[in-house]
Amino acid sequence: MADAAEFIVEIGALIDAALDELLPSSDTSPVRLHKAMRWSIFAGGKRIRPAILFAAGRTFGADDNRSVRTAAAIEMIHTYSLIHDDLPAMDDDDLRRGRASCHKQFDEATAILAGDVLQTIAFKAIAYDELLAPGTRVRLIQLLSDAAGTPGGMAAGQQLDLEAEGSDASIEEISEIHKMKTGSLICASAVAGALIAGSNDEETAAIGRFGEKLGLLFQITDDILDATQSTETLGKTAGKDAAAAKATFASFYGIERASEMAADLLEDVRSALVPLDRETDLLEGIADMVMHRVS
Amino acid sequence: MADAAEFIVEIGALIDAALDELLPSSDTSPVRLHKAMRWSIFAGGKRIRPAILFAAGRTFGADDNRSVRTAAAIEMIHTYSLIHDDLPAMDDDDLRRGRASCHKQFDEATAILAGDVLQTIAFKAIAYDELLAPGTRVRLIQLLSDAAGTPGGMAAGQQLDLEAEGSDASIEEISEIHKMKTGSLICASAVAGALIAGSNDEETAAIGRFGEKLGLLFQITDDILDATQSTETLGKTAGKDAAAAKATFASFYGIERASEMAADLLEDVRSALVPLDRETDLLEGIADMVMHRVS
Repeated sequence: MADAAEFIVEIGALIDAALDELLPSSDTSPVRLHKAMRWSIFAGGKRIRPAILFAAGRTFGADDNRSVRTAAAIEMIHTYSLIHDDLPAMDDDDLRRGRASCHKQFDEATAILAGDVLQTIAFKAIAYDELLAPGTRVRLIQLLSDAAGTPGGMAAGQQLDLEAEGSDASIEEISEIHKMKTGSLICASAVAGALIAGSNDEETAAIGRFGEKLGLLFQITDDILDATQSTETLGKTAGKDAAAAKATFASFYGIERASEMAADLLEDVRSALVPLDRETDLLEGIADMVMHRVS
Repeated sequence: MADAAEFIVEIGALIDAALDELLPSSDTSPVRLHKAMRWSIFAGGKRIRPAILFAAGRTFGADDNRSVRTAAAIEMIHTYSLIHDDLPAMDDDDLRRGRASCHKQFDEATAILAGDVLQTIAFKAIAYDELLAPGTRVRLIQLLSDAAGTPGGMAAGQQLDLEAEGSDASIEEISEIHKMKTGSLICASAVAGALIAGSNDEETAAIGRFGEKLGLLFQITDDILDATQSTETLGKTAGKDAAAAKATFASFYGIERASEMAADLLEDVRSALVPLDRETDLLEGIADMVMHRVS
């Protein structure tokens, strides 16, 4: 656990340096667009997805410098989705990562474009990664476009999440929406790390099963935090799920049962690491961190 | 000219079939999202960018089936930009390609997500193109992400275009904005066709110069059409540039002078084809068509 916390700090510095290099400077034109991109990217995100990617990469023996651009790309995809999700037409949230959301700090048009180009630059970052063979870059772009798109990916999940507001969605439906909206990119982070390290099909499938369970654990703990933590602690508006009458694990099962489910799932996540037959302390530490985080 | 018109019809059928295959079916979940994507993609767009790509590909000897996915990808990028540009926070337009714009037909959230996933699926289409070597796919994704992104690309141009509304932008600034917003993707279409055919660096540079001039020609004629044609003929709201006090070639120079500039530019476009040392009837025909189109 202490190791994972240290690791997250180490990865945070690596990833921030890479993002600073990959994003256009805020004194180049269009200044407002570039400032908006940087406002949201450097807002103190926890960089959990990059940490999962680096951890999976190290588990299978990848050098960090081969992981860094793809990890930055995934953080850009994640951030683009946050910027667009916060827009008035979507979740309409003024607060993100403890400060004004992108459209509040700038304006809606700039926020839409900032999200758009973060997605563009994410794919660009991988396409230009000279440390990876072209075939690996292509495989990573396939992985990320599947995880971010539709059907079954992040954007599909956001669409269904919006449609489910105030509806009587079943727990199976809730779980499926969560899997797409949040789980798919978390799972892709784990798989990407393994692919960068040159994992074989069996290993890739095994880390995929770990990533799927970790994604679900992340979502359940996220639901619990939304229902139990303050806006100040979260850095984003708390209690949003209840206010939007959104079906969540917390609202469906109650906090106590949802917490038990999370604890059970943490065991599943750990079990999923066994078939890897590798030193998995780092991945276990990250799973613990996802379980016990307070924001 | 007759050949180019026939060619456009032929390419239109090819590209529509490819788009139908690449986009998720409208009876799969999320149905509303997939319907919105298809609403905008199959709205009767002229497929000029795909036609440029196929024409450049044929000029350098590429089989059409190697061009089709990348051409579809470019049309998806173009359509995503139209969907987002039409949003209330951007150009706020209710009409596109002769029918309701995406957010009018569906809703803003769905339109934002439809644009987002069209971008995602554009990169995905190239990444999964088994007819192209991984190195070619990577090069095409580099090209498209440069053309669509920032700085210097389509989204950067849209940001500057919005900022220029009602300002006293110089003709140099106007020209630069047009080059980014419209020219970059048109130029990339020409270059992509050549790359797919295996063009060498010199040929790629030459087709790039052709593409740059063709992009500018497209924008000048677009400005003239906006100022002179009816909404009915254009299939999108006419007179928008004047209403938004947008600087254009037409408003800056007047229609007559802008038309002369377009004619001069058409000669430049033709001259740019000479160094290719290939049979360029098809590319010339497309340039003529861009010059003389009525919508």
